[in-house]
Amino acid sequence: MKGTGYNIAVVGATGAVGTQMLAMLEQRDFPVGKIKLLSSARSAGQTIQFNGAPVTVEEATPESFEGIDIALFSAGGGISKQLAPEAAKRGAIVIDNTSAFRMDPDVPLVVPEVNELDLQHHKGIIANPNCSTIQMVAALEPIRKELGLSKVIVSTYQAVSGAGVQAIDEMKAQSQAILNGEEPEANVLPVKGDKKHYQIAFNAVPQIDVFDTNGYTFEEMKMINETKKIMHMPELKVSATCVRLPVETGHAESVYIEVDAKGKDTADIHRILSGAPGVTLQDNPGEQEYPMPSTAAGKTDVFVGRVRKDPDEDHGFHMWIVSDNLLKGAAWNSVQIAESLIKLKLV
Amino acid sequence: MKGTGYNIAVVGATGAVGTQMLAMLEQRDFPVGKIKLLSSARSAGQTIQFNGAPVTVEEATPESFEGIDIALFSAGGGISKQLAPEAAKRGAIVIDNTSAFRMDPDVPLVVPEVNELDLQHHKGIIANPNCSTIQMVAALEPIRKELGLSKVIVSTYQAVSGAGVQAIDEMKAQSQAILNGEEPEANVLPVKGDKKHYQIAFNAVPQIDVFDTNGYTFEEMKMINETKKIMHMPELKVSATCVRLPVETGHAESVYIEVDAKGKDTADIHRILSGAPGVTLQDNPGEQEYPMPSTAAGKTDVFVGRVRKDPDEDHGFHMWIVSDNLLKGAAWNSVQIAESLIKLKLV
Repeated sequence: MKGTGYNIAVVGATGAVGTQMLAMLEQRDFPVGKIKLLSSARSAGQTIQFNGAPVTVEEATPESFEGIDIALFSAGGGISKQLAPEAAKRGAIVIDNTSAFRMDPDVPLVVPEVNELDLQHHKGIIANPNCSTIQMVAALEPIRKELGLSKVIVSTYQAVSGAGVQAIDEMKAQSQAILNGEEPEANVLPVKGDKKHYQIAFNAVPQIDVFDTNGYTFEEMKMINETKKIMHMPELKVSATCVRLPVETGHAESVYIEVDAKGKDTADIHRILSGAPGVTLQDNPGEQEYPMPSTAAGKTDVFVGRVRKDPDEDHGFHMWIVSDNLLKGAAWNSVQIAESLIKLKLV
Repeated sequence: MKGTGYNIAVVGATGAVGTQMLAMLEQRDFPVGKIKLLSSARSAGQTIQFNGAPVTVEEATPESFEGIDIALFSAGGGISKQLAPEAAKRGAIVIDNTSAFRMDPDVPLVVPEVNELDLQHHKGIIANPNCSTIQMVAALEPIRKELGLSKVIVSTYQAVSGAGVQAIDEMKAQSQAILNGEEPEANVLPVKGDKKHYQIAFNAVPQIDVFDTNGYTFEEMKMINETKKIMHMPELKVSATCVRLPVETGHAESVYIEVDAKGKDTADIHRILSGAPGVTLQDNPGEQEYPMPSTAAGKTDVFVGRVRKDPDEDHGFHMWIVSDNLLKGAAWNSVQIAESLIKLKLV
C-alpha cells in the first residue's frame, strides 16, 4: 500500500452511481488516502460526507487528477471520453463506468468473478461493463466453466435508477399523478436525449438507450458485445431484449442458455451456482423463494432463482437473475475492480 | 338468429373480466335477447347498467341457465367446474374463461384468428385460453402459416388486472404507501391462496399462479400446453417464464421464435404481420414506435413491435407482443368466440 492509502477521485460523485461508489468505499473500509469528489461545474461546491468528514465537491478538470492513484468515473460517456485520458496521462488508473471505452481492444472490460486477470493488460483505463451485462455474466461464468456455453437469450426487466436520479424522480412523480387521477408528464424516459418520452409509471417500455440501425437498442448491443468480450467468447451466440420497468432499483433478467454438456439437469446448475463467487442461489419454488428487485436492492450479490431445464432441449436451461444495478451493476463492481488492482499489485 | 337475439348469461359479471365482457357485448352491438348477470351470493343484488338499462345481479345456480343460449363464465375455476356442466346440460353453450376445461380433449380451446373451426367439435363447453397465450398465438399463427414454426421461448411482463380487482387495488395501495415512505402491505399477490405474499408495487415478481412440481408455474405450463393445443402442434418446442409487473392492464411478451423457412428477414415478418387479422404492427424504431401496455390498454388488437432477426440464428427472430389482457386476453376473445358461433351457425 502507498503511504496511508490510495488517493481516490470519484467523478460524478453527486449522481446515483457516484453516491453508491462512496458508500461502497466506506463499507469495504477501502484504504483511501486522499479522496477527491469531482463533478460538473453545476454540482461543484456541494458538501458530501465521506467516512464521517465533509468533502467539498470540485469541478472536474484535467488537473484534478494530479496525484490521484485510482479515478472512478460515472458522469456520462462524454465526460469520460474527455477526462479519462487526462487522468490516465497523469498516472491515475481510471475505472470507467460509462460505455465510452468498453469495446476498445486496449481497455480491459472486467467483472472480477469472471475475468479479473484481464486487469494485467490495462493501459491506464479499465472499463466497468454495463449493469445488465455484469449480473448476467457473473451467473453464467461458473456454468460455462463446468458445462460449456453456446447460446444466451436474455429478456431484461430493468430499473429506472439505471437512467439516473432524474428518472427515479420522474417515475415517482408520474406514479403519484396517476394515483391522483391526473395525466402523467414524461420528459426523461426512455432516453433523455431522444425525440419522444413515454410514461414509465405502471408501464413497461421496450427501449433502453437509443436505437441502432439494425433495430436493436444500444443497450441490447452492449449486452451482446460485452458478454462476448468479458467471457472471451467471440463465438458465443447472444441476443437480448431490454425493457425498462417502473422499479426504482434492481435489474431482473429472464435468461435462456444452451450448454455444451449433455444430460445435465436443474440440480447440476444448482450445485454449480451454490458455490459460485458473488452469486446467491435463491431457488425454492415450494417455499415461493426466488429473487426479486425488492429483496436484491441494497445487496452486492447476484441472486439466481427459477432455474429450470427446458422442456424440449436437453442442453437448454432457464433462470431468473436479479441484482442491484447500482451496486454489482455499477458502484460495487467498480470498487471490486479497485480491490483487485491492489490484490494483483497493479496499482 | 333466434327471435330478437340470443339469451346471454355472464357469470362473474361484477369481476374485472365480467365487466369487460358486458362492455364488449355493448360495443359490438351483439344480438342480445335476454341478458342475465350472475355472480356469487356475496355480489348478488347489485345493479349493473347494460345497454342503458339496469340489470340486477343474481346468484348463479344450476337453474339460472334455463333458456340461456350462450353462457360466458369468468368467476374462477371452481365455479366453472361446478356450473358449466349444469349450463351445458340445460342447452346453453358455455364459453369458459377459466382454466377448468382448457386441456380437456373434448373441449375446443379457441382463438378465432387461429383455430375458429375447432368450434365445430364443441360438446357444450368451449374454453377461452389463458390471456398470455391468446396474444402470443394470435401473433405467431400468421408467421407459422407462411414460414413454419419450430420453437418458442417467451418471457412475459404481465399486468395485475389478470389477478382481478383485488390485485389492482393492492398495487395502488402499495404504490401510495411507498410514495408516502410507508411499509407496503401484501395480502393478494402473487397468488391469493398461496402461502406468502410479496409487494408488487415498484417490483417484478417471477410467479404467476402456483408452482408445479417441475419448477414451472401453472401459468407457464398453461402457455406451454395451450399454445400446442391451439396451434395443433404437439411437437412445437415451447417454454415460458411468467412475471408479474406493477402495470394495471396490458400484458407484454418478449418472444423468441425459430421458423422453418431459411433466409427470411425482419421485412418478411413485417409483411406477414401487417396483413394479419387482429394484429397491429407497431414497429418503427427510428420514430420510437413500439407497443406498450399504456398504449394497448383499452384496445382489442394484439400489437407487435421490436421485430428483429437474431444476430446468430438464420431461423431466429425476436419480437415484443402487447395486448389488453382483459380484452383480447379474456372478454373480447370470449365475445369473439360467441360471434364465431353465430357466424358458423353453431348456436
